[in-house]
Amino acid sequence: MTSYHAPVTEMRFALDEIAGLPEIAGLPGYEEATPDLVEAVLEEAGKLSSEILAPLNLSGDLESSVYENGVVRTPSGFKEAYRQYVESGWNALAFDPDYGGQGLPWTLAMAIQEMWNAANMSFALCPLLNQGAVELLQAHGSAWQKDTYLAKMISGEWAGTMNLTEPQAGSDVGAAKTRAVPTDDHYLITGQKIYITYGEHDFTDNIIHMVLARTPEAPAGTKGISLFLVPKFLPGENGAPGPRNDLRCVSIEHKLGIKASPTAVMAYGDNGGAVGYLVGEENRGMEYMFTMMNNARLAVAVQGLAIAERAHQQATAYARERTQSRELGSAEQAPVKIIRHPDVRRMLMTMKSGTEAMRALIYFTAGALDRAKREPDEARRAEQQAMLDVLIPVAKAWATDLGCEIASLGVQVHGGMGFIEETGAAQHYRDARILPIYEGTNGIQALDLLGRKLLRDDGKAVNALICHMKATQEDLNGLKGPAIVSLRGALGEGILTLEAAGDYLLETGGDDMALAAAGATPYLQLFGTVAGGWLLGKACVTAAQALDGGNGPWDPGFLEARLKLGHFYAENIMPRAATYGAQVIRGGASVLALDEALL
Amino acid sequence: MTSYHAPVTEMRFALDEIAGLPEIAGLPGYEEATPDLVEAVLEEAGKLSSEILAPLNLSGDLESSVYENGVVRTPSGFKEAYRQYVESGWNALAFDPDYGGQGLPWTLAMAIQEMWNAANMSFALCPLLNQGAVELLQAHGSAWQKDTYLAKMISGEWAGTMNLTEPQAGSDVGAAKTRAVPTDDHYLITGQKIYITYGEHDFTDNIIHMVLARTPEAPAGTKGISLFLVPKFLPGENGAPGPRNDLRCVSIEHKLGIKASPTAVMAYGDNGGAVGYLVGEENRGMEYMFTMMNNARLAVAVQGLAIAERAHQQATAYARERTQSRELGSAEQAPVKIIRHPDVRRMLMTMKSGTEAMRALIYFTAGALDRAKREPDEARRAEQQAMLDVLIPVAKAWATDLGCEIASLGVQVHGGMGFIEETGAAQHYRDARILPIYEGTNGIQALDLLGRKLLRDDGKAVNALICHMKATQEDLNGLKGPAIVSLRGALGEGILTLEAAGDYLLETGGDDMALAAAGATPYLQLFGTVAGGWLLGKACVTAAQALDGGNGPWDPGFLEARLKLGHFYAENIMPRAATYGAQVIRGGASVLALDEALL
Repeated sequence: MTSYHAPVTEMRFALDEIAGLPEIAGLPGYEEATPDLVEAVLEEAGKLSSEILAPLNLSGDLESSVYENGVVRTPSGFKEAYRQYVESGWNALAFDPDYGGQGLPWTLAMAIQEMWNAANMSFALCPLLNQGAVELLQAHGSAWQKDTYLAKMISGEWAGTMNLTEPQAGSDVGAAKTRAVPTDDHYLITGQKIYITYGEHDFTDNIIHMVLARTPEAPAGTKGISLFLVPKFLPGENGAPGPRNDLRCVSIEHKLGIKASPTAVMAYGDNGGAVGYLVGEENRGMEYMFTMMNNARLAVAVQGLAIAERAHQQATAYARERTQSRELGSAEQAPVKIIRHPDVRRMLMTMKSGTEAMRALIYFTAGALDRAKREPDEARRAEQQAMLDVLIPVAKAWATDLGCEIASLGVQVHGGMGFIEETGAAQHYRDARILPIYEGTNGIQALDLLGRKLLRDDGKAVNALICHMKATQEDLNGLKGPAIVSLRGALGEGILTLEAAGDYLLETGGDDMALAAAGATPYLQLFGTVAGGWLLGKACVTAAQALDGGNGPWDPGFLEARLKLGHFYAENIMPRAATYGAQVIRGGASVLALDEALL
Repeated sequence: MTSYHAPVTEMRFALDEIAGLPEIAGLPGYEEATPDLVEAVLEEAGKLSSEILAPLNLSGDLESSVYENGVVRTPSGFKEAYRQYVESGWNALAFDPDYGGQGLPWTLAMAIQEMWNAANMSFALCPLLNQGAVELLQAHGSAWQKDTYLAKMISGEWAGTMNLTEPQAGSDVGAAKTRAVPTDDHYLITGQKIYITYGEHDFTDNIIHMVLARTPEAPAGTKGISLFLVPKFLPGENGAPGPRNDLRCVSIEHKLGIKASPTAVMAYGDNGGAVGYLVGEENRGMEYMFTMMNNARLAVAVQGLAIAERAHQQATAYARERTQSRELGSAEQAPVKIIRHPDVRRMLMTMKSGTEAMRALIYFTAGALDRAKREPDEARRAEQQAMLDVLIPVAKAWATDLGCEIASLGVQVHGGMGFIEETGAAQHYRDARILPIYEGTNGIQALDLLGRKLLRDDGKAVNALICHMKATQEDLNGLKGPAIVSLRGALGEGILTLEAAGDYLLETGGDDMALAAAGATPYLQLFGTVAGGWLLGKACVTAAQALDGGNGPWDPGFLEARLKLGHFYAENIMPRAATYGAQVIRGGASVLALDEALL
């Protein structure tokens, strides 16, 4: 019941037809991503996911990571699974070939990450955080830093971490107080960091911490933050780990979910200062963080998608197995499998169509990420980057909120069994709940969408994206069938609402930023809902055209199912857009009206 | 941060102005409920809640109930808290005065139950289940059963439980297989029951199980279910517990939440059969269950309200304390308390207005329950009973889903701290998740609303309720101010949508019950959303009139706040009605369209 099978056909469809992986594979540097290789990678990653990682998910949760005297022991089987993962070369998929990476498109890498996370989100967090550290070093590391650390972090021999948060500096990273004092060729780091995912563990011989800290004369706030590489063990002979650095794991948190993943409190410099190497230049740490932020936020969106897929698989399996009550509207008195009950079907359809919409949006966004990096034409790159920047906060927040909603539906499908931990449904519900919080809370994403993405360029990038949505609506105009008609109508209304909400915020944001911000979250939810409908519309265009013209590479039943899922989304999920639109346009003032003392 | 203070003024307002407690106190048998007594009861219960029960909530969760060799040990402090609760007479509040009860109105009792549940839901479950058992005995027990058991269960000296579920019989209670064979003056009971809340514990010297079972010649299904009283200890001398009965607790569940509350697997008759006493007549067990079902479901709705209130109190306290980031739209660079951030305010306002709407709906429903019992005029009683029957599934499902949503917002307000168990926000999120499942899943409630409440009488009772909503809209017509205008508009639209959805279901239900059932859940959510707006509208009518006419007994600031909360609800929660309406009216077919194998 807690098994996982990678939905390779659905993934392949979203990769090829929504994200345009075949085109992306034609971009310079991505030539390796041939259809055969993509197929093989998906199949092999699917195996590792279902055979090695998924079986450890529930046991990992029950056992959880354990802290004792500065040492963290991950749950049984995790270390060995990590070894297999690394030995098969999975860690290097999308990284720089000059340092041992395979240089494959991020679009494909995100699909593979969906598998790791669906199979075992706690496990997948180690590579996810390492990815951020690798990207920082790829972009800003010195030659020595790259030679000494990057190749080992790409292979997975060593693991990287991200050290941003401090007790007084959460969403406001610029409030960090950790100090970095220059000494010889390095800095001495002193301070405490919290919420450090895999800050300490037993997977690797060395752990490479990327730490934000402040030099003695640094300006206040975000402009005075520098980035340091602080290894657990200092460089030794022949690249092996040398002496222990002055840093330690103080404790790990007792959390609601992702319990197999150790969340560490880290202390730097208890004995005079941990040796840290400046990455890039002083005071540019926050700027560097932005180089990895889009990828990191998209990776968290992938986690929302992944947990939804896993919860859906588990709920469907249970609904096919569990017998209870007779069928409504049938003369037959015998009890039936609960999958036959309309209310259970509503839950499963919400889960499935929501998951498909997330996958479409996230893979499409990953495609924009690859194009923004690799399109030969500068104007095309800029266009894709602008689209990517708009989509990132939407994907992160919308997919993680929807992931939580779907995990909760997964519990509900199980009835009483959903509340019993051994069933596994409750674990997805607990694990999913971190996603709207970390890597920038969903409230922060909404403000990012409003301030940096909508207002800053006066709606230009948002409108460019809406033009793509309108193009899909045009495509739907030329086709027939109930799903198409329904999607066309819902998408049309959704786009109008999205435009009206954007206009309202553009108007309001100049005069009264607090009032605009009161509508930021429903605006983001509106955006995600409509974007999901747009891309399921795109999927339905493909499906309808393929059904008309010999199916292409797809099974006709699979294509028909795409139409039915699009239809459900149009009639049952898209109506949410009206609610969000009303909240944005009319609701803001009443958010702010009540006296603070009476809240 | 995890403290709780009973919101006595808000409760009093909802009791007096929404439920009409002063009128209810004028009904025969409720004369004791004078304003002074109500005030004193609320104050005293508030003290027990905040001083004794609330401090045990987090520790109870961490420690949880523990099972060993058939014995259950509740967490530290729980047994002593139960002793204080019983000694102060709280258990007897609404029960039959002939057996030691105080005979106070259920409306008041439900408000008091809100306190117990907000303070410590795991603790409150023991009295909640006992309540169901007491009601069954009050209504259907023999004189001997009442003399021997009822008085002790009313005082709380002994605790009652409800044994309905078996592994193959969850929502379909009629599938129960537990056997009852007549022998002398009793029956011998054999079988296994699961999910028995407080099926075994250390609060009381005896535990009185109400068990559904099937006699040898009983007809199949619900028509062959009988109800038995099966005490843990058989009657001894002078009413003291005598010999141990043939029943035992096999294990307790490892659950997502309400961990301090033991959820038992019970085995009856391992050694030949547990002695059980038939309650009422054979084969009428399911019918008897309906006598307590409205109360039990309303009590679970109260739990949804209670957990929302607790989560809101905790989130607000945190938001007043936590400093992070500068204020939007302000020139000031210094970081501020997060309660000043619009997105945090949106969350807190959603929590607070949602909680108020739930409280209004639940207390109003409790008022209908009292009136349906005590109105001297039979036609009035029938009218109130019909209204009650419509409101019960709405209150249960809408308030518990909203309770989960609010508990989740409570986590989100805390940011990273929300995911750390020691903070307590995560516990509310876990505890709340059982509420949409037990006492009839929310899907079952939706089918009850659709089938038994809407279709069975051709919409008569629903329309009678909608007339009350329209009367409130009329009242709003005579008043002024932005909150009033906004509520009037939103309520008007909501009522139209509710009527249209009801008409659609009445039309569809006759021909195609499965299609109608596909819209049952959004219909219930629509109903709850509009009913919440109606009763907040009623609150705003009172507030506006009082502000115009010297405030009545209320502080003007308190009355202004009611208007602002109503305003927020009208503009930010009522828009959900449009989404639900569209789902009911257009969405059903696509729920059922996808081939089962492809779900």
